[in-house]
This record gives sequence, C-alpha cells and structure tokens, in this order.
Amino acid sequence: MVASLRLAVAGVGNNISALFQGAELYRRMSAQGIAESEFPGVKRPRIGGLGVSDLRFVAAFDPHPNKVGREFHQAVLAEPNNYPLLAGELPAVDVGVDPGLSEKDVDETSPAFRRVVQRLRESDAEVLLYSLPTGLQWAATAYARAALAAGVAFVNCTPELVARSPELLAAYEQAGVPLIGDDLASHLGTSVVHRALLGLLSQRGLTLTSSYQLNFGGNEDFRNLREQGASKRQSKLNALAQDGVDTGNVEVIPSAGFVAHLKDHKVAILNIEGQGWAGTPVSLDLKLQVQDSSNAAGVIIDLIRIAAASRRAGVGGFAAAAVRILKSPAGGHPSYSDEDIEASFRVLDTVSELAEATAGQ
Amino acid sequence: MVASLRLAVAGVGNNISALFQGAELYRRMSAQGIAESEFPGVKRPRIGGLGVSDLRFVAAFDPHPNKVGREFHQAVLAEPNNYPLLAGELPAVDVGVDPGLSEKDVDETSPAFRRVVQRLRESDAEVLLYSLPTGLQWAATAYARAALAAGVAFVNCTPELVARSPELLAAYEQAGVPLIGDDLASHLGTSVVHRALLGLLSQRGLTLTSSYQLNFGGNEDFRNLREQGASKRQSKLNALAQDGVDTGNVEVIPSAGFVAHLKDHKVAILNIEGQGWAGTPVSLDLKLQVQDSSNAAGVIIDLIRIAAASRRAGVGGFAAAAVRILKSPAGGHPSYSDEDIEASFRVLDTVSELAEATAGQ
Amino acid sequence: MVASLRLAVAGVGNNISALFQGAELYRRMSAQGIAESEFPGVKRPRIGGLGVSDLRFVAAFDPHPNKVGREFHQAVLAEPNNYPLLAGELPAVDVGVDPGLSEKDVDETSPAFRRVVQRLRESDAEVLLYSLPTGLQWAATAYARAALAAGVAFVNCTPELVARSPELLAAYEQAGVPLIGDDLASHLGTSVVHRALLGLLSQRGLTLTSSYQLNFGGNEDFRNLREQGASKRQSKLNALAQDGVDTGNVEVIPSAGFVAHLKDHKVAILNIEGQGWAGTPVSLDLKLQVQDSSNAAGVIIDLIRIAAASRRAGVGGFAAAAVRILKSPAGGHPSYSDEDIEASFRVLDTVSELAEATAGQ
Amino acid sequence: MVASLRLAVAGVGNNISALFQGAELYRRMSAQGIAESEFPGVKRPRIGGLGVSDLRFVAAFDPHPNKVGREFHQAVLAEPNNYPLLAGELPAVDVGVDPGLSEKDVDETSPAFRRVVQRLRESDAEVLLYSLPTGLQWAATAYARAALAAGVAFVNCTPELVARSPELLAAYEQAGVPLIGDDLASHLGTSVVHRALLGLLSQRGLTLTSSYQLNFGGNEDFRNLREQGASKRQSKLNALAQDGVDTGNVEVIPSAGFVAHLKDHKVAILNIEGQGWAGTPVSLDLKLQVQDSSNAAGVIIDLIRIAAASRRAGVGGFAAAAVRILKSPAGGHPSYSDEDIEASFRVLDTVSELAEATAGQ
Repeated sequence: MVASLRLAVAGVGNNISALFQGAELYRRMSAQGIAESEFPGVKRPRIGGLGVSDLRFVAAFDPHPNKVGREFHQAVLAEPNNYPLLAGELPAVDVGVDPGLSEKDVDETSPAFRRVVQRLRESDAEVLLYSLPTGLQWAATAYARAALAAGVAFVNCTPELVARSPELLAAYEQAGVPLIGDDLASHLGTSVVHRALLGLLSQRGLTLTSSYQLNFGGNEDFRNLREQGASKRQSKLNALAQDGVDTGNVEVIPSAGFVAHLKDHKVAILNIEGQGWAGTPVSLDLKLQVQDSSNAAGVIIDLIRIAAASRRAGVGGFAAAAVRILKSPAGGHPSYSDEDIEASFRVLDTVSELAEATAGQ
Repeated sequence: MVASLRLAVAGVGNNISALFQGAELYRRMSAQGIAESEFPGVKRPRIGGLGVSDLRFVAAFDPHPNKVGREFHQAVLAEPNNYPLLAGELPAVDVGVDPGLSEKDVDETSPAFRRVVQRLRESDAEVLLYSLPTGLQWAATAYARAALAAGVAFVNCTPELVARSPELLAAYEQAGVPLIGDDLASHLGTSVVHRALLGLLSQRGLTLTSSYQLNFGGNEDFRNLREQGASKRQSKLNALAQDGVDTGNVEVIPSAGFVAHLKDHKVAILNIEGQGWAGTPVSLDLKLQVQDSSNAAGVIIDLIRIAAASRRAGVGGFAAAAVRILKSPAGGHPSYSDEDIEASFRVLDTVSELAEATAGQ
Repeated sequence: MVASLRLAVAGVGNNISALFQGAELYRRMSAQGIAESEFPGVKRPRIGGLGVSDLRFVAAFDPHPNKVGREFHQAVLAEPNNYPLLAGELPAVDVGVDPGLSEKDVDETSPAFRRVVQRLRESDAEVLLYSLPTGLQWAATAYARAALAAGVAFVNCTPELVARSPELLAAYEQAGVPLIGDDLASHLGTSVVHRALLGLLSQRGLTLTSSYQLNFGGNEDFRNLREQGASKRQSKLNALAQDGVDTGNVEVIPSAGFVAHLKDHKVAILNIEGQGWAGTPVSLDLKLQVQDSSNAAGVIIDLIRIAAASRRAGVGGFAAAAVRILKSPAGGHPSYSDEDIEASFRVLDTVSELAEATAGQ
Repeated sequence: MVASLRLAVAGVGNNISALFQGAELYRRMSAQGIAESEFPGVKRPRIGGLGVSDLRFVAAFDPHPNKVGREFHQAVLAEPNNYPLLAGELPAVDVGVDPGLSEKDVDETSPAFRRVVQRLRESDAEVLLYSLPTGLQWAATAYARAALAAGVAFVNCTPELVARSPELLAAYEQAGVPLIGDDLASHLGTSVVHRALLGLLSQRGLTLTSSYQLNFGGNEDFRNLREQGASKRQSKLNALAQDGVDTGNVEVIPSAGFVAHLKDHKVAILNIEGQGWAGTPVSLDLKLQVQDSSNAAGVIIDLIRIAAASRRAGVGGFAAAAVRILKSPAGGHPSYSDEDIEASFRVLDTVSELAEATAGQ
C-alpha cells in the first residue's frame, strides 16, 4: 500500500473544505465496502497509486483572523467559508493554521519566509497547494519560492503567473521538484458546457447568431466579483475565440451577482441563438447548478496526486498529466498531445508500481 | 457549372416545404451577392459540385386529398402542412402531385406501380426522396423497388427498413444505383444535444444520477405521437446505452404532447442530474427550440446531394459520406471510419470536378 | 386540549403516506419546542381547535394486494407508493389494512358493505377520507353511503361526483353528518400558478398570444395518465375559460410523460407568450417542481379538520370553509362569498372553544 | 372628436421611440379598420376621450450630441437608442430636438430656463413628459419648474423626487396644473411578477425558503447599471417587505449584466424555493423576456393621457387615476383606495364627454 499524500495548503478556503470533507467521505464509503470505481464524481480512482482519500493535511497557512491559530478541521468551517458540512463530525486534524506570509515577507531572508520553509520541511510535506484568493501575485510567487526552497512540489490553482514563469519553471526543473499550474479548470464549469454546445452547433453546420452566459453565487468569489469580472470575462471570451467562435455577439458575465443565500452554490444561465436550414431559428436555454468548491476540489485531487507522484518518481518541473485540468498550463495547451498526457500518467503509475513491488520484497 | 439536381419526392409534407423554401431562399441570397460560405445553417455549401439551391423538383407523389392534383408549389402549403411561409411568393413548379402507390399496388406488375416507374423515367429524376409519414414499411419498400426499376437513386428519411435490407442493398449495388438510408439524424436534434451533455459529464468524471428528455410540438408527428412513441423511445435509449450511459434512471419521451399553436416548432426539455466531488449535486436544465422540418431539411439537402453525385459518379449502393447524418445507416455506424467518410466525400467532389473539366473542353 | 381527530381512510396511497408522515414530523417539531405558527407549509395551524398533528388513523381500506392485511404504517410505504421516507422510523399504527369494498359489494345489504360500516363504527372514526385512484365512481358512492350509514363525516378528494350529488348531499344534511367535496385543489398546483400569471397579464393590459402547460412525474397518476388526460385537460381549460382567458391558443397537457425516477415529484413546464405596447413580444417560461403528494396532503389536512370540527359542532352537509381548496365544491364556487367562508371557519373555532371551556369546568 | 394630445418630451430615449412608434402602429391598425378594443397590449383604449394614437409631439429636449438639432423622428432612432424600428418608415415630425437645460441653467432667471419655458408655451404643449436618464435630480426639478411656469402638466417617469415633493405638489395644485409621478411601474415588470408569485405562495400557505431575481439587457439602463444597482435593489426589496415577505433570504439584482446584443430586450431570471406540507420542497424557476421600452411606453401612454385629460378638465395636482402605474405616487400608495382611482378615471371621462357634447352643439 502506498503512503498517504502529505499535503500543505496555502489558503484554507471553501476549496480546501471541499477537498478535506470529500476525502473523508470517500474514506467512509471505502470502509463500508464501496469499491473506489463506484465513487461518485471521481474520474481517476488512482493516480500514481494514490487514491482519493489517501490524503494527510500536515501544514496550513492562511492570514484570515478567523482561521489563524485554529486547528485545521475547525478552520475549514470558519466564516467566510460556507461550503456545507457534508458528513457529520469531521475528524480532528492536529495542525494549527499558521498566518504564513504577508506582502512584506516576500524576501527569502525575512523571518516569516524562513519560518514557512521550515514548517514545510518539518511537516515533511510532499506538496504545497496554493489556493489563496485570486489576485495576489506576490503571494503566489513567494509561496512558490518557499516550496522550492523546502524541496516541496507546488500546485497553483489560481490564475497568477507561476508555472508559466520561465524562471520559476526552470528553477523547479533544475531542482527536480514538480511545479503544476496555472489556474485550475473546473470539474464541470460553465465554460466547458458553453464550449461544448457552441462546438456542437458548429460541427452540425448551424450558424451562431448570439449567445450569453451569466454566473452568480454566494461565496467570496462572487462577493468581490464585479471588480475582477473584466479580466475573467476577457479570458473566457478568448477561450471561445480560440475554438473558432465569432464572439461579436457573445457575452460572458463571470459574476452577475452575489446572492448570499446560495452560499457555495453557483448558478449559470446560458443562452444560445442560432440559425438552421433556411435561416430558421434555433434556441438553447440552459441553467447549470453546481457546488462551486466541489467543482474545484474534484480537479485539485488530481493535480495534487500528479504533483506528489511526480515527486516520488523524481520527476521535476511540469507534468503533462495535468494539462487537461488547467486553464493556463506551463507552455500552453498546444504544447501537449493526447499521447504526451497518457504517457505522463503511465510514468506515474509505473513508478508507483515498481516502488510497491520493491517495497514488498 | 453543374446541372441542377433533378429530384422526385414521395411525400409532400413539411420537410419538403422546408427543403423547397430553403433552396429558394438561398437562391435569392446568392442573387443578392451573398457568398454561399455565408449561408446561415449550411454545413457544406457544395457536395459533388452541387450547391444548396441547385435543386429542381421534377416529380411528386402523395396520396393526401389536399395535395393530389395540385401543383407542387401549392401542395407544399396545403394542410396539414404548417411549416411557415418564409419568403413571400414561392416560384411556380409546374409539377402536379400524383397519388402514387397505395397498399394494394405493391406488386411490380400493378398498373399503379408501373405508372410510378414511368413517371420517374419520364421526369428524368436522379433521386427519389422518400419521406412519407413514419410507419408505412410497405410504402418504403415499394417506392424503393420502383426507384430501382427506373434506375433512380433512393434516399430513405424514415426509420423503415430499406438500406439496411441486405436484399435491397445488394440489388441497388448490382444495378449501380445509389441507396442512401435509413432514418435521418436531425440537424440539431434533442438526442444529439442530450448525448453531447451526457458525454461531457462522463468525460469530466462526474457521475450521472438521472436524466430525462421530453419533446413536444404542433405538427403531424406530434399529433399521432403517443402511439409511435414507444419504439422511438426505445431507439433513443439504445443510442444512449451505446454511448456507455447507464440508462436505468434515464427517460426519453419522444412525444410528450401535441400543442397545436406551436405548429412546426419543436420544444425539448432536458434535465440532467449528476454528482461531482464528494457526491455533491450538479444539475443541468435545458430548453431547446427548433423549427422541426428545417431540422430535417438541413440534413436532407446533404443526403440527396450525396445520392445524386454518387449516381453521376456511377457509384451504386450506400455512400459512406452519408453515415454521420443517418440514425441507422446501411451496415451500422461502426462499419465506417472517419477516413471512409472523408474519402467518400472526396470521390464525389473529384468526379464532379473531372466531369466539369471534361465538359469545359 | 382537544381530542385527536379519529380518521378512517379509503385508499392508502402516496397522499396518505404524506399526510401520515407530515403529521408525525410536525409532532416532532412540536416536541422540540417549535411553535406551530412556525411550521413550514402550514396555512392554518388550527381549525376548530385541531392542530396538524392531532391525527389518529383508526381504520384503513385498500384492495391493493401489497397493502391488504399489513399494518397501516407499513402499508403506506408499500409499492407502488413512492413518497419518500421523510423522518427516520415511522411510529407503529396498530391498524390492519382491510380490503374494503369491491365493485360487487355496492349493495348496502352485501356482507362487505356491512362489514365496512361496522368497522367505521367500531373504530369510532369521525371522518372517512376517500382517496382511491381517480375514476372509480362506484367506489366513491359506495364509501359515501357506508360513511353515512355509520354516521361518519365524508371527505372526497377525487373528481367523482359525491358532494355535488343532490341526493347524497340531502341525505347527509338530513342526518346531520358533514360531507366535504369534491376534488381537492392542490396546495400549489400548476393550474393555480398558470391562472395567476395569465390573470396578471390580463390585469396589466397585455394581450395573450399563446400558452402551454405540461405536467410530468413518476407516480401512479402519471403512469396511467395518457388515458385519463383528455377529461383532465378539458376541465383545466374550462377553468381558464371561466377566468376569461381565450383558450384558442392555450394547451394543457396534464400528463405529458411518466418519468419513473422522479417518483412522487411532479414537474410542470409553463410557457406564456403575449404582446405588450406596440404589439412587441413578452414571454414567460416557468418550471415548477413539487412533491406531488405533499401538494395534496397540505390541503387534505384542512379538509379533514373541517369535516371533523363540523361533526363535533353538529353541523351536517357541506361546510363553506372548504370551498377554496376544492375544485368542484358542492353547489359550485359562486355560491359562496368570502364572508361565508370566514363565517364557516369562525363557527368551527367558536364551537371548539365553547366545548373546551365547558370541558374545563 | 377630441383634439390630439400635444406632448413635449424631456429626454428622447428608447421609451420615447417606443411611445412614438407604438402610437403610429396603432394609427395604422385603426386605418385598417381594426377596432381599438382589439389593439394588442393596450389596457385602456380611451382615457378622458383620448385614444392611444391621439398623440402629437410638439417639443423635444435632449442634450445628447447625436440628438440635438435633429428632427424628432430621426432623433428617436439615433444611438445609443436601440429600440427596434417596428413599422417601416416613420412619419416626419417637424420638431427639432433642443438641448434643453444643463446643470448650470437651473435658475429660473437663466436664459436657457426661460427659453425652455417659452418653447413649451409656443408649442402649445399640454404635457411635458420627463424621461431623462435616472439620477439627475437637478434636471427633474428644473424641468418641473419650467413646466409649471409654462402652465404645462408634468409627468415624471423617473425615481427622482418631484410629485412627492410637498412644495412642488402644492405649487402645481395652486396653479391648477396636473403633476403626475413619481417613477413609472413597468407594464409587466419583473417585480410585479415576482410579487405575484410570492403572494400566491403565501396565500396558499406555503413557506418561502429563499428567492432571487436577476435582470439583464442591452440598453443604456444596463450599461450603467452596476453603480445605480444598489438603490434600485433596496427599493425593490422594500416593496417585497411591504407585501409581508421576509426578505432575509431574498436577493434582487436589478442589473446583473450588460449584454449588448440584447439591445432593448430585458431578460429576468427568477427563482423561488419554498416548503409545502411536511417541509417538502417546492421550486419555481422563471425566465421573463420583454421589450424593455415597450414595457415603459405601455404605461407612459396612460400617464400622459391622465395628465392631459386632467389639464383639460381643469384639475391640478396629482390624479388618483395614475396610482397603480407608479412606483412612488404622490402621497404614497395607501392614500388611495380602488374607489378613489375609479372615481378619478370617471371624472376624466365625464368631463371629456361633456366637452364633446358642448363642442357638438
């Protein structure tokens, strides 16, 4: 049996609550004799030998006053987190939340920075998962440097530039430490549904007339949304344009409103108007409802397992296995073929199997 | 320039109205200088050199009392047809609607049968398009035999067994006459959207919990729906099962109701419930609205061009080019690869180009 | 404190499961100190002094083989019933389900009929609630006669003719026994929403162009739907016409499909197209989802309390208090003013208060 | 026959385009022999004898550079206006658009102010309709003063404080000039639908759990929306609270997004979650689509006819007839009973009839 993945986290938000609670839930299903191939919402039961509940939280950094100093399993439920409590009592995790880095601690010689590196080392973490709120480029860079200094693999869930930074990527590669990023693609996001439907329209030979997409919800992402909306909107429109969609009459509103009572639920409204034979109209209206942070955690579970398995296999830098579940992978999507990706997964699995075989001798 | 496609039709319903009016509309667009690559709702502007308005209706068979004896361009607007009149006055088509075959005329020696064969010959038709109401196996077979006797290519839009009949297919192949069928796949049908979304769910690693699909509308298909619903339901569920969907909690209602005022519009309601990470719920609700007969005509235009171009190229039997736009192609879907299909289109185009080059000398 | 309502039921379907489980749930809320004014989904916490959990099931009749002979609390969960089990274990109700009457037992001298009368008497039932499947006029009449013979108040939930029968009503009035019916109006049914929106359109001065309403679900009502749909459709269209709606372009499909996995959930799809100023279009699309049998039980709880309180007050025949929650009340809706209805409720309350005061002396 | 209503407008936006084009369209219907009782989207064919096409635009003020100096019928189609051109060519209206007042012209002695008063007098306007963009309190007040100075009735479509200002109202009353405002209620707005559905829920005894309402569109109101959203949101929530709705879990987003290609169409998404019997869930999802400015014009046509008829009848100040179609009427809604409103309409009709009878002698 493989050893559990030793995970450190920077940011103890809803995504981490979802990751923690989900892993616990699957552990209980397993204890009830449910086969992991039957776990709902899991695409790959094993990556590099690691299952979805083989997870141990060994360090946590978050500057929020409601979280600092609390034990990890309490901090994941502290406001403004509002991911639901899924499964009765949570198991205690005897790891206190550390305030981590602030904007004045980015120098590698600062005491705070050195303390973070030390905690990563002492905790024997394999992976540092970065998921602080979007927009803190300084934090993303500083934690990535701290992880590198501690020899810990780094996973960047946010759009900040980390794995796409040639300098950082080169440093990780040289050190033989995995660096996975940037910006996770949701498990079932609005954009992937929107693109699938627009692609279908085009593939069948219908003509797009207009389309819109609105997203709203009740978590912190939507509270601060209206400011950050513009860049997210453009990046989503760019993605559509790359698919060959004429975005002239297409609108994307990443953050149409903050609806507090929705909590961590996200609702998306999608409309597509097109023309078929003889120019007659075709119209699609769709409402998509998801648990926003489950939508992230369902992908994070793969990213961290790829990172940990790569580290165990001694493979540094980016791993092709992560490409399909990142919005902006190191090197860009076109650098990786389907074969690259499959080969990357196979390497992780093979090394894990060899390690187990050796361990068993 | 290629000669127009000389088309005979068995059945003068909404589909034929849509086909006729659409071709006329595109002809007018062309006359206004709109490039055919800009035609809305057209996937392939040319097949074997034939454009979407290169169409001449040369014979028409339909036993409905409102249609028999009327000129073609009037019959397409006669009740119970209720496809909208799209584009002002329709051009006159000096072809009277013939009652065609009845159930007692299926013998090839009967006077009615011989008359139909003779009309096909005299009209110099290249293709006989069969689109009488669903369920008349005797009629589908009889018209297919009449077309074969007249050396005219046959296209079967309905689920009746024609191109899948080994005997009929062999006879067409031996005679070098094209036989295209069975059962057209809509341009953008409910099933193709349903399958795309279920496929996306599965590809992303979410778990399907339940799903339903309901269709309703106001044309003749929906009036007589409730009887024929059962077999159509099963065939749609089978198609989903072939995609690997566990159809235990999936329901398809092909004909949920006749709503007269919708006329030829079809509305479909789709729901998908699934589970993401930690079993948290994901839900999709979709409303799809289409002009039902445009949805058929947008595919018929390709089927008849494939049939005519194959006949001009001297290729008998089934043409791989038609596979993707048929629900039950001769030989079944798995018999044809993407390469087969592309090769089939290329043959039609090449022969047409050679013919033009020769003609130009 | 008033004594619990002693209830006999003819029919142990989903509605009775909902009624029984709801009463139990509210009892537990009460035990937890939740005030009855805070009970969700309850319009009138008290009628004639009776609360929503003051309910005792004392006799039950149902011919279904899965139910006959079983104890009441087990029978409510037996197939084809599929109302969810809401609240953990149900309290035992030591009442066996009796097969009751069959079509050959309608004569008052038949042994079965006499046995039913005797059971009603022995059980000391105050009310017989009739909710067998729709369409059994003989059963509705026979049970109404049996209740009358036993001096038990009768509530008819179905469209069968009982309280609207002048003979039956006169007999109940003469005997001083309450008779409440016919045909319960859902707590929040599709029709009431449809009528509210069409009424709003008209009141604001917009013009209705067309509208449709489709209902589907997974309980027995929807399984056998397509046969019974026609009369239900006409009765719903009539109700709209009475509101002054021009139903020329309005369609109602009471039973668009049986979707097994929806179980006791009902889904309704509503569309309204209209014209505002300058004839420009207005459109409303609505999806309504309800727990079908809760929708009935939320009204049944009022009907049976009205019946029991009337009987306790010595008032026979129909009670105006029930008018708003019946589709076809005795005498028809226009016979009762709002004042009549309020007065009727007040009588029940006053008598109950007097009775308590007297009992307290 | 009554003389046409002589109308001056401050603001030549989409609402005025809708008003102008609608009046013209109904005029053409009338010319085709369509009875005014059959006009689509018209609640009251006559108010004080005035029909919906008895409208003459005699003066227009708007500071927008695309409009100043152009003839009225051209200005209504100038950008950023994007109400559709409904009915072919518009009739010429030989009235040039005047820049009107700017923020420095609010003093009654300023030349601009005096010019506006003079234009109103010279044009012989009966009513000045104020519909400049929301938020210009100075402009609303200044135009109201100018109208009063010219003896012209004033109608305020915006939320600015005019008719609710005790000083202004007293001045109008004293002068015997009608003052109608403030803030028009849409013909069929999202709020009225939302309130109707929440009211229905409550009336039927179901419990509201949560609700949201989002509005989006492509006209200027939605472009500048996000700033003005907060006050509009609060006013809509207040309206719900006045209906007795517990707005704790209710969210209203007046301006969820600017979707340019929607132009003057508004889309509203509404969700209501509730609990029925036994706390089981009830859910309503609604999509409402309207032509935003028709939604205003359908009410403006009544407000200006009430104003003109009041002036003709010599009745100054506010008119009860306008109460139901204003969001914030002078004195507040509770000051007026249904009887007051009907009486107010009757006065206008009677005076008009008398005037005609006298004129006919």
